[in-house]
Amino acid sequence: MTETSQPLLLRALAGETLARPPVWFMRQAGRSLPEYRELRSRAVDFIAFCHNPEMAAEATLQPMRRFPMDAAIVFADILLLPRALGQDVWFAAGEGPRLGPLPPVERLADEIEASTRRLSAVGETLSRVRAALEPERALIGFAGGPWTVATYMIEGRGSDRSRARAFAYREPELLDRLLDVLVDSTARYLVMQARSGAQALKLFESWAEGLAEDVFERVVIRPHRAIVEKVRAAGVDAPFIGFPRGAGALVETYAAAVPVQAVALDTQAPLALGRRLQARGMPIQGALDNLLLQAGGPGLDARVETLLAAWSGGPYIFNLGHGVTPDTPVEHIDRVVQRVVREAVSV
Amino acid sequence: MTETSQPLLLRALAGETLARPPVWFMRQAGRSLPEYRELRSRAVDFIAFCHNPEMAAEATLQPMRRFPMDAAIVFADILLLPRALGQDVWFAAGEGPRLGPLPPVERLADEIEASTRRLSAVGETLSRVRAALEPERALIGFAGGPWTVATYMIEGRGSDRSRARAFAYREPELLDRLLDVLVDSTARYLVMQARSGAQALKLFESWAEGLAEDVFERVVIRPHRAIVEKVRAAGVDAPFIGFPRGAGALVETYAAAVPVQAVALDTQAPLALGRRLQARGMPIQGALDNLLLQAGGPGLDARVETLLAAWSGGPYIFNLGHGVTPDTPVEHIDRVVQRVVREAVSV
Repeated sequence: MTETSQPLLLRALAGETLARPPVWFMRQAGRSLPEYRELRSRAVDFIAFCHNPEMAAEATLQPMRRFPMDAAIVFADILLLPRALGQDVWFAAGEGPRLGPLPPVERLADEIEASTRRLSAVGETLSRVRAALEPERALIGFAGGPWTVATYMIEGRGSDRSRARAFAYREPELLDRLLDVLVDSTARYLVMQARSGAQALKLFESWAEGLAEDVFERVVIRPHRAIVEKVRAAGVDAPFIGFPRGAGALVETYAAAVPVQAVALDTQAPLALGRRLQARGMPIQGALDNLLLQAGGPGLDARVETLLAAWSGGPYIFNLGHGVTPDTPVEHIDRVVQRVVREAVSV
Repeated sequence: MTETSQPLLLRALAGETLARPPVWFMRQAGRSLPEYRELRSRAVDFIAFCHNPEMAAEATLQPMRRFPMDAAIVFADILLLPRALGQDVWFAAGEGPRLGPLPPVERLADEIEASTRRLSAVGETLSRVRAALEPERALIGFAGGPWTVATYMIEGRGSDRSRARAFAYREPELLDRLLDVLVDSTARYLVMQARSGAQALKLFESWAEGLAEDVFERVVIRPHRAIVEKVRAAGVDAPFIGFPRGAGALVETYAAAVPVQAVALDTQAPLALGRRLQARGMPIQGALDNLLLQAGGPGLDARVETLLAAWSGGPYIFNLGHGVTPDTPVEHIDRVVQRVVREAVSV
């Protein structure tokens, strides 16, 4: 593959400023698509669905057929990892994820190697998708950030994270050991994903919000740095996209301290902050409001132009600030993606 | 009163760097205090409790007797205002606030003048507290930020604000009219509070998080600016503390655009960000993690020293990044407050 036939996503992640930014959307596969809802209805259990490479590959590819997305992201869930480490995880219909009691950390630590094997279906999904996908479209693998996964493991469900944050103060050594287990297992999981066809790796730290700076350093920055270093030590050079969602002003600290190749910005990130990161040589991804995408209308069109004008002058990947909502009309997704891929932007 | 016998809080709000920062805590009155729980048990209904000047003044003064706080904040609730505007508001035990359907905005607009009269009990509470409080301790009045109050009015309860954020995109004119009503009624409410004894005014924008920059400008910055201007136009010069909680990097935009005298920082605010605001002449307040206060121990002591060292070199008011939790031991509160008031800090 010549330099210029590389997928746009990888060129942007390498720091190139392109004639137009590559585009993909978080949760582009999933409940916003009628064909997904049909596919999903064939499996009773969400976890079984994720562990079925045929179904998961089909879900991954569905948005690639509908929209001219520049990247696919493997269909999976961040809670497959704690399940593979031996904690009970289930999805109650309409209630989100539930987890059983947190096992002793030493027991989880004993399962690190086995956890990667138990996630082999995700590797198989990646191989299938990579074989089916056009070479100019990139394939992204991912995992949850250790802090986010730990909040679910500690609280047993989605929450305001106050129990997990209190845990960070009351049981600092125990939390650090849990994060170490997650760093190790996540790094192995991502190495496996890269070897199975993932060309870029994204860390979803969905609950980076509301942490004091010293806690953020301890539970987000340090573990992310360790994951990237472990993946590199395994000989994998796929670029990393770090997504510390809700990190606010700390996203700049994150970008300076973690050796990721790009930072995904959330809905709140100021345009000037994105430009500062680009000026320091950091590609950025983001950050259209998913609720504006859902709402549509002239406000959506205007905001897309604003984002393109603000960020297309540097290395940039067009995306949302959060995932596509189930209620988003596919016409809105198509309209925005068509706009981004249509032409070079005049800035 | 001579210049130097002014309450420390007001001196800090005027931009003075003091030998030691004044200190008070959000929710210093309330469920963390056994004497509050006893007092509260005498009234069945929380709203009736807030509207009873004798009880509300007693609740306001309870922490002032226990701790050497430099400021009292009137005991009230941000949802007294929508109730005074004619929307049903009630507090279900253990479930937080509930609101009836959003009335037509024109109906709310008709109630603006009457709403201030309906809140006269809060003025009476302030008068009582001011009369009972030592002159060197300041008294703070407050109101909810219009966006935060609007989210409750739209969603009918505490939530993830996604319905209110969607509303901001789908019904922009209606939202702007609702915010206008809240700006006008909030300004009148704060003028009344200042005339009743409040020496500083705080705007609690508790749900400033997760807003795109253009939405933040529209629903937070513009309304806050309008409130301060209206209060000034009424001849009230009490200093304002703006608290855009969760605004992340946008807190700097807020501080530059809204004519408040100080900005309250939340738990997440980086130390360097606080110093940047101080360097621009903006006093700051904050931002100890309320969950660390609850947890206690050497980590708490260390963080208090870090905050004092980072911010006491400029105009600074020591506080939490969020309210005292009901489970916080009073010994932890006392330990921190005693540390702050004890002595000048070596920086």
